[in-house]
This record gives sequence, C-alpha cells and structure tokens, in this order.
Amino acid sequence: MNYTLNNIPERTAKPRQNGLTMVMDKGLSLRQVEDFLEVAGGHTDIVKLGWSTSYVTPNLTEKLKLYRDAGIPVYFGGTLFEAFVIRNQFDDYRKVLDKYGMEYVEVSDGSIEIPHEEKCEYIQTLSKDVTVISEVGSKDEKKIFAPYKWIKLMKAEIEAGSWKVIAEAREGGNVGIYRDSGEVRQGLVDEILTQIPEETIIWEAPQKAQQVWFIELIGANVNLGNIAPAEVIPLETIRLGLRGDTFNHFLNMK
Amino acid sequence: MNYTLNNIPERTAKPRQNGLTMVMDKGLSLRQVEDFLEVAGGHTDIVKLGWSTSYVTPNLTEKLKLYRDAGIPVYFGGTLFEAFVIRNQFDDYRKVLDKYGMEYVEVSDGSIEIPHEEKCEYIQTLSKDVTVISEVGSKDEKKIFAPYKWIKLMKAEIEAGSWKVIAEAREGGNVGIYRDSGEVRQGLVDEILTQIPEETIIWEAPQKAQQVWFIELIGANVNLGNIAPAEVIPLETIRLGLRGDTFNHFLNMK
Amino acid sequence: MNYTLNNIPERTAKPRQNGLTMVMDKGLSLRQVEDFLEVAGGHTDIVKLGWSTSYVTPNLTEKLKLYRDAGIPVYFGGTLFEAFVIRNQFDDYRKVLDKYGMEYVEVSDGSIEIPHEEKCEYIQTLSKDVTVISEVGSKDEKKIFAPYKWIKLMKAEIEAGSWKVIAEAREGGNVGIYRDSGEVRQGLVDEILTQIPEETIIWEAPQKAQQVWFIELIGANVNLGNIAPAEVIPLETIRLGLRGDTFNHFLNMK
Repeated sequence: MNYTLNNIPERTAKPRQNGLTMVMDKGLSLRQVEDFLEVAGGHTDIVKLGWSTSYVTPNLTEKLKLYRDAGIPVYFGGTLFEAFVIRNQFDDYRKVLDKYGMEYVEVSDGSIEIPHEEKCEYIQTLSKDVTVISEVGSKDEKKIFAPYKWIKLMKAEIEAGSWKVIAEAREGGNVGIYRDSGEVRQGLVDEILTQIPEETIIWEAPQKAQQVWFIELIGANVNLGNIAPAEVIPLETIRLGLRGDTFNHFLNMK
Repeated sequence: MNYTLNNIPERTAKPRQNGLTMVMDKGLSLRQVEDFLEVAGGHTDIVKLGWSTSYVTPNLTEKLKLYRDAGIPVYFGGTLFEAFVIRNQFDDYRKVLDKYGMEYVEVSDGSIEIPHEEKCEYIQTLSKDVTVISEVGSKDEKKIFAPYKWIKLMKAEIEAGSWKVIAEAREGGNVGIYRDSGEVRQGLVDEILTQIPEETIIWEAPQKAQQVWFIELIGANVNLGNIAPAEVIPLETIRLGLRGDTFNHFLNMK
Repeated sequence: MNYTLNNIPERTAKPRQNGLTMVMDKGLSLRQVEDFLEVAGGHTDIVKLGWSTSYVTPNLTEKLKLYRDAGIPVYFGGTLFEAFVIRNQFDDYRKVLDKYGMEYVEVSDGSIEIPHEEKCEYIQTLSKDVTVISEVGSKDEKKIFAPYKWIKLMKAEIEAGSWKVIAEAREGGNVGIYRDSGEVRQGLVDEILTQIPEETIIWEAPQKAQQVWFIELIGANVNLGNIAPAEVIPLETIRLGLRGDTFNHFLNMK
C-alpha cells in the first residue's frame, strides 16, 4: 500500500485460499492483459477466460503465457466444457486442455442438463490431472433450486474433487443466487453457509451492490468471482472499507 | 479457431455481404485501435467513428490509416453528415470526405428533418463517388413510423444507391426498432423482412439481448451494428452458439 | 478541430475557470493513462483519482507524473481525506499530500459526519498550501438537504477558501443533486444558481442524460465532474451540439 491508514481490515496474502478475487477476461488483447496485470495483478488470484471466448480469441497461447508468467492461474469458462460435452467431444476437450497446458478447469451445467452423478464423474476424472472448479446453478432464470438442493449439489461436488464451488450469477448478475433485479437471495446464501465452509465457495458478484453485500455479510476476505478487469482496484477498496459503500461497515465493527 | 468443435453454425468469410459486424469507435486512442484490431479485427467488417466524434478526435488521419491498413472500411457517423447539411455546408462535407480519403459515407436524418426525396438525392449524389450506407429511423423517441413507412423509405434509399440501410437504434438501443425498454419491436422487424432482403439491412443492436434476438430470428449471419469494440468477441460467440444465450438455439436446429 | 463547422458554441480554452471537465480515474494503468491523454488530454481540465483508489494503485508516483507532465492537475478523492480524518490521522494525510507533491486536495463529508465549522477549518488550513475543492452533499441517499442548506454550505466553504465546490452525485449518479432514478433535482439546481456563481460549482454528472441536462440548462461551458475517461470525447461533442442529444438545442438558440 502507498501510505499507512490505521484500522484497515486485514487481507489474506497470495496465494490465497480465501479472499480470492476471480476476474473474467472476455476478450482482452495482449497489451490489455499487460495493463491489467500492472494495475490489478497483485489483487487478482485467478482469471477465467469467459465462457467460450477462447475459441475465437487470437494469440491464445501468448495470452495464457502472460497470465502464467505473472503467477496467476487461468482457466476456460464452464460453457466451453459444456459445449464439448453436449457434442460428445469430452475426450477432445481433454486434448485441448493438454494442448494449452491448462492446470485448472471448470465443470458446470449452466446451459445443459447432465445427471448430477455424471457431472460428479467429470469432476472426479478431471481432478486427477488438474484443479477443478465446479459451478452450481443454472443460467436459466426459470430454474430455481431450494436451498437444500444447492447444499446437496455443492457437497457432492466437493467430495468428487472440486477445489472450489462457484455460485452461478451470469455476467449480468441476474440468475442463480440473485433475483432478476440483481438483488441477492439472502435466505439462500445464509442457509448455504450453515453447511458449506465459506472459503470453499466463490460467489459470482459482477455488480458493485452484490460485492458490497457479500463483503458486509462474510467480510473483507470473501471469495468473489466474475469481476471485470477494470473493477479489481475498486473491489479492493470496498474490501478494505475505503469506498463509501463499506466505509462505515468496518469502522463500526471495531 | 483455436480448436475444433463440431456442429458450429457456418459463418460467412470476409469480405462479407451478410453476417457483418459494424463496430462503433467513440474515441479510441491509436494504441487502443491497435489493441482492438489484434483481438477483434478478424471479426469486424466495418467501423463507424460514432456521430461527430471525428470533429474532436486527435490524430484522425493516423487512426483512419490504422483501420485501412487492417483492411477494415471506416466511415463517419451520420450525425456528422446532418451537422453539415443543417448548416448548408454539404459541399464542405464532400471536401472533408475527400481530404480524409473516405470511401464510405453515412446519410441519415436522425436529428434533422429532410424531405425524403432530398435525402435520396444526397444518397444518389454521394454514391457516385463513395459507398453509401443510409440510416432509417429517428433519434427522437416520439417519432414512431408504421411498418409500411419503414419499408417505403428503405426501398427508396436502396434504389437511390445505398449499399446497406441501417435500422436506427441509438447507442443506448432505445429508439427506432426498439421500445423505450430496449425491447425489439418484433412485428415491425418481421414486416420489414417480408419486403427488404435481409442482407441489405444492418440492425443496430448495441445491447446483448438485442443481438441475441436478431441472431435467433435471422441466424448467425445477420448484419449487426453499433457494437462496442470490447463486445465483438462476445458477439462472435453468440453468433456461434457458444455463449449461454444462444447455446441451445443452434443445437436444437439440427 | 479537424474541419470547420459553422455556428458551433464557443468553448473556453485551457486553463479554464468554467467549462471544466473533471475526469475520474478509478484505476488506469500507466499505458492507459497515456492513451487517455492522447485522446482526451486536450479536453480534460482536472483528474481525480477516485475515492481511495490511490491507496492500492501501483506506480502511483509515475501515474501522477504522467498527468502533471501533460499539464493536468490531479487530486485524491474526498473519501481518502475522510478515511484519514475519521481515524484521527489528519496530520498523516498532510504528509501524504506532501510526499506525493499534491497541489490540489478535496475536502468532503460524504461518508462521515463533521460539524460544518470543522469542515470549513480543514478547508481554511489546507488552502494555505494547496488548492482546495470541497464537496457538498452526502453519499447517503437518505440524507436530503433543502436548497437553502445547500446554498449556506456552499457559501461558507467558498468563504473558507474552496476554489470550487462540487455537488455530490456518486459514481453512479444517484444521490445528492439526483433522485434515485438518476434524474436531476431541478428545483434544487435552479435555486442554488440564484445564489452561487455558476463557474464556482462543479456538477458531478457521470451519466449522459445528466450531462445533457446541465449543458442545456447552463450551456456548453458548464463545469462537469466524475466523467469516465472514455466519455470525455463524447461529452465534448455534447457540449458542442454535435451529438443527437443536444443537436437541436444549440441550433435553435441562434
């Protein structure tokens, strides 16, 4: 930090198990990745190349190298996994992961329906070679699960080998743990937290109000995901109680 | 593409007559143009320097050169044409087009009222020297035309020499073919398509929901315009059924 | 300007006392600052490093140098002043200002409560060494002042030594002079302008509709603040009546 302020909430240090910031790159150029790393690399724990953008992104190998050289793990969005699975090309997907030297993979069922045991088998298989992040929740706003169902799914996926489970929100932040309006389904989150260790969950929280909500509920070191590259510095100040939104929250806790 | 996925909708190849992506540059720096071209140049067919931004943009000549060197046609937004016309400076505008070596021009009447024959004369005059794109629809949300009127205007402008006609939406996507809410006026679009060849129209669709709507109606190779530079890669994945929004649409078509 | 259009509203020239554009940098990289300066430096009068982003921003000294080398004053957001004051670290804040060679400072009470005489003392103290910009209005949407109160506060702060007073809006443009919806509280603005010289106020106007509203009320040379870096070129065209939004406003004035 550039100067000393007293009574700032303590942040975990990299490599982190909690307090993670997961960033979504939906098509940065190489130079834009460098710019992002200069400013936000120190506050970023993991980067997702959003959904299937890696399919059409030029200079993919060079981009992956930039992230890795900065010590930041990178993975392809879960929609890509689903695009291979629905086409019966799971083996091809494993070859793609190999070809690009991916050390992390996302397993999700946001756009397709897979029996949950099958999803857990994918997690088990892949977790032998790479670190698996699995996502719970549908991209379909009509599919609303009861809290006990979320918990059951998350537990099974962690047992199958997931390093972290992601609570789905879409880029727009309006499905899964959120209502249409982008508001958090608070009862759902509270109930999940009674059963699943907080550090095992990454909450997708693309919108500022959602980030604020989770930071006030869980603290400076909540795991948050789908953060836009330009929003990492703002998010870091919210975690530290140095933006208007959480300014008083942390002061009042003392 | 970086790897092989089966059953991906076929995209037309550049130089395209349909499946065009028209991007709006509202003030990129030279280096930002280079970044944009690196990532999205291969998926961009034509670039508009939004409305009159070219009036206040530094290094305009260098910027135009960057786009041309990348083989991407570039033109000034229609509001600039209107700004000259309303000041009785049409001849000056032609000199500006000459000075900057413009090969494309937009003729519109979104902010001013011109008798339609006069608009068509401008199209006719300009199309002798350059490729004309003309825009139908007002920026004024109170001006709503009946479908037969849209069709009549489009037909006349194509006859007068327009290469493509653009269906107006504003940057915010809330006038012309859209309702205040940004929702598409579906009946209007259906009716236009009964009379005007689909490849002749560029639909301004700055918002993701609008892009999805047109891709589901017309297909992967619909012409879409007013796309933000950072949204070209995301749009390309939507065209290919590789983002949640159109994931099932193309699978179900087989 | 790149070409000549008649009857364009006259803009003041830099260094300006009115017609200021104040830009908010909430975490640009060094190269992004250079890109911003290339395109928008000529239209930017002053830059704020938003709220406390300077605390977590890498290469802060280099960033400040880039702005100063371009002749653009730069200052830390008022929330940083408040973060020091609430921790009884005002003297430390003065040292931070010294260390970074800051020539401008913002004094605000958007997140904390300070008796107004105390706020004015801070203004008085700081204005001996640096140029003070003070902000009126709370970040708390529940705190709504009557117009006479706004006027009284602004007058006292100008007397205490503020160069300009800022009318608070937050980054999102939904508190202070704005309603929740982002709409301007027009009666409030009208009444303030009967008592406070227009060139002494900077209106925070992050949203386009707000910029348009103030330009139509006060003219091309209204002071506007919290402008996003990428929106400076668009704003300049709105000031000049060259975007649809104000296209007819200035023409009709002739």
